[in-house]
Amino acid sequence: MVLATAAEQKARNSAAIGKAVTELTAAFGNRVVTSQAVREQHGNTVTWIANQPPDAVVYPQNTEEVQQIVRICAANGVAVIPFGVGTSLEGHVNAPIGGVSIDFRDMIRIIAVHAEDLDCVIEPGITRKALNEQLRDSGLFFPIDPGADASLGGMAATRCSGTNAVRYGTMKDNVIALKVVLSNGEVIDTARRAKKTSAGYDLTRLMVGSEGTLGVITQLTLKLSGIPEAISGGICPFPSVEACCNTAIHTIQSGIPVARIELLDSLQVRACNLHSNLGLPETPMLFLEFHGTEASVAEQSKRFGEIAAEFGGGPFTWTTRPEERTRLWEARHHAALSNFALRPGATMVATDVCVPISRLAQCVTETQRDIETSRILAPIVGHVGDGNFHLTLLVDMDDRDELKRAEALSERLVERALAMDGTCTGEHGVGQGKMKYLVAEHGRAALDVMASIKRALDPHNIMNPGKIVALS
Amino acid sequence: MVLATAAEQKARNSAAIGKAVTELTAAFGNRVVTSQAVREQHGNTVTWIANQPPDAVVYPQNTEEVQQIVRICAANGVAVIPFGVGTSLEGHVNAPIGGVSIDFRDMIRIIAVHAEDLDCVIEPGITRKALNEQLRDSGLFFPIDPGADASLGGMAATRCSGTNAVRYGTMKDNVIALKVVLSNGEVIDTARRAKKTSAGYDLTRLMVGSEGTLGVITQLTLKLSGIPEAISGGICPFPSVEACCNTAIHTIQSGIPVARIELLDSLQVRACNLHSNLGLPETPMLFLEFHGTEASVAEQSKRFGEIAAEFGGGPFTWTTRPEERTRLWEARHHAALSNFALRPGATMVATDVCVPISRLAQCVTETQRDIETSRILAPIVGHVGDGNFHLTLLVDMDDRDELKRAEALSERLVERALAMDGTCTGEHGVGQGKMKYLVAEHGRAALDVMASIKRALDPHNIMNPGKIVALS
Repeated sequence: MVLATAAEQKARNSAAIGKAVTELTAAFGNRVVTSQAVREQHGNTVTWIANQPPDAVVYPQNTEEVQQIVRICAANGVAVIPFGVGTSLEGHVNAPIGGVSIDFRDMIRIIAVHAEDLDCVIEPGITRKALNEQLRDSGLFFPIDPGADASLGGMAATRCSGTNAVRYGTMKDNVIALKVVLSNGEVIDTARRAKKTSAGYDLTRLMVGSEGTLGVITQLTLKLSGIPEAISGGICPFPSVEACCNTAIHTIQSGIPVARIELLDSLQVRACNLHSNLGLPETPMLFLEFHGTEASVAEQSKRFGEIAAEFGGGPFTWTTRPEERTRLWEARHHAALSNFALRPGATMVATDVCVPISRLAQCVTETQRDIETSRILAPIVGHVGDGNFHLTLLVDMDDRDELKRAEALSERLVERALAMDGTCTGEHGVGQGKMKYLVAEHGRAALDVMASIKRALDPHNIMNPGKIVALS
Repeated sequence: MVLATAAEQKARNSAAIGKAVTELTAAFGNRVVTSQAVREQHGNTVTWIANQPPDAVVYPQNTEEVQQIVRICAANGVAVIPFGVGTSLEGHVNAPIGGVSIDFRDMIRIIAVHAEDLDCVIEPGITRKALNEQLRDSGLFFPIDPGADASLGGMAATRCSGTNAVRYGTMKDNVIALKVVLSNGEVIDTARRAKKTSAGYDLTRLMVGSEGTLGVITQLTLKLSGIPEAISGGICPFPSVEACCNTAIHTIQSGIPVARIELLDSLQVRACNLHSNLGLPETPMLFLEFHGTEASVAEQSKRFGEIAAEFGGGPFTWTTRPEERTRLWEARHHAALSNFALRPGATMVATDVCVPISRLAQCVTETQRDIETSRILAPIVGHVGDGNFHLTLLVDMDDRDELKRAEALSERLVERALAMDGTCTGEHGVGQGKMKYLVAEHGRAALDVMASIKRALDPHNIMNPGKIVALS
């Protein structure tokens, strides 16, 4: 099989795209949009990765229409890029060789809620907040919380996780089955609704995290959790980042089923103070949340406070009252936004790595030293129960020297994580931004396996090409 | 690419096997065994699937030796079949076209225990009991319990689960990374030791459950759990199987983190009484286990007892004392063995399905009626928190009419589960026995995806051929 290179494909595309758009317009009328503004909105609009807009945007209403779009694109050798709400951070929605963006704006229905089975069946365009809003009366919720109000299709495609993955797992643990349109326009269901199965290759987990490169997700069956009877939330200052990390390790080890355990370094706390006038002590802090019965969250909170004290942390201030919890957690909730206050006008670049939790303190403190010597403003937040943390680089993109230092810092962060048996991306996915690290992380042979799977499922390289594995 | 059919491959193998065995013997000396007895022990020795022995058995001592074996076999076009301890139930270790069995008897080391990270790195031949024996002093354990003392490599390969999957998940949830020798003799690590990652296709989950058809597992990194502070165990009789299932549903829904919730139908209870003289009431029963602190297991047990009473169950007898727990659970622990007492001399055929839990009561009761009209002796045990249950068919293999009725019963069980959005195999894997149901379960397009992955990773079809997907 001879695969087209990216360059060949781009040339072919520029000839073919007109034909594809004509065919799409005949089928979908004004649900095909080619205006510059809309196209640019569908390329990457976050971080420092350049915007590469698609040639057209189509808004399907059901799986059959997605099949039709993929078939038209496949017949013309035109790339297909799924689009949720565009919050992915590594250039996942960019169209480096052009192509058609499939926007799931109109596919936001909840198809079924099976309360007895603790699952629901939904369309990919619905966002997590909208889903939880509609689920509320059932007493159930979908726990994964990446911060942004992302679409569920995008969350599955990037194997996202977030603040409460420490208790509820990542998308890989919370997707039961997917409906996927393949590169040939055929549609598959990756699994049935049974809670477990050993019936062949795990196509569900193969599709979760494949970022649209193996198929387009058009329906998801998700595992739901019961809304906890009681929730306690609190904050705890520490003398050092090490003390935070060691407290996190011991909390996990002692079996406390913490729902969220978030680190903010002192710079991040300062940003939050600047943004919301909170008057918090500008020292590393942990933000905690516990789920359970009234008795159990009280017990968990008490035990956590004792562990924190052993590492010099405290006082641990906590409450089960919703409005007080929200107030205590305000700094964490506004952490991302608050960074604008640290350096108005700067470009924010979020990057993340994940290491075995035993290496976390060392990884964070070495990174802090590196930030300092790099002369970059970069607060840290971490989902420390998982060994996962984020740097938000605040960069003046017009300062070439600063940009260079920021890029080098970001590269060293990945090298540091890999040297500690960690990963170059804990939850943001690969997209375009992290492709260059995959050989170092996985080795050539494993990356070849990924490429061979890509070729097997997408022989003409039309499914979100130029992401995860580059075929050439 | 032209793939050899099974028949062509068998003919080629019979010519090539001599050469491969000569080369293997040159490399491994008396660690290559070709005696009839040993070969037969390495084919399927359980259930009604015929024994198809390999041509030779090799006992490697490390990953490099497995690479060497695979390279010799690949060069000669000879099949490779990984072997743990041979407890798989669907003919996974059979050699339908001959080939070389790789027995992991000598690869049973624990390479590392990372207590802070709650993980360990092990070789595939170690069994779960041996692993937990060696882990005990660390305060950690590996929770997956399929009943049999299976090897961890085999447990990962078949995506097994068992009695406490309801709390701890299946092998897919408890394997962090695998070292795998591919069909070309290259070795890959599927992931690093970080607790989560979104760095490309999930090769770990692709290999878990692939039954040796995509590669040979030579090392596993496993997630460990803390040994619970307290464990309570108990038993509860019910007026009907429906009452058991409804109690299970409500227990799960109300958020009680039950560690085990096992159904025995009245026939299974009778078998246990016969075997161990227990004097239990011969009515459907649930066997429970709760993990947590002293206070929390007491609370969980109390809440369960209340739910059981609502459905007419009880009294719920429970205890936290180890020796009393063992006594209460004796019937469940000996369920498999006790079936011999029900019909001495019969062949035992274990089969399992899994359905959404809301359909479980209906699926089990319809199956019981079918068992009755089929005139087959077949007690039922179920991991009912997951919607998963097992039939143990006790069959006189010399009675052709009975055998036919048993086979038809077993087929209808799968059809019934599939009609309820369930799976043909909840935890036993596909092997040879369940291959015929995969089109009905997954659809042709999804099965084609599995076949294309198989072709991509094993173009010459030497990795445990004739299992999961048949290439022809």
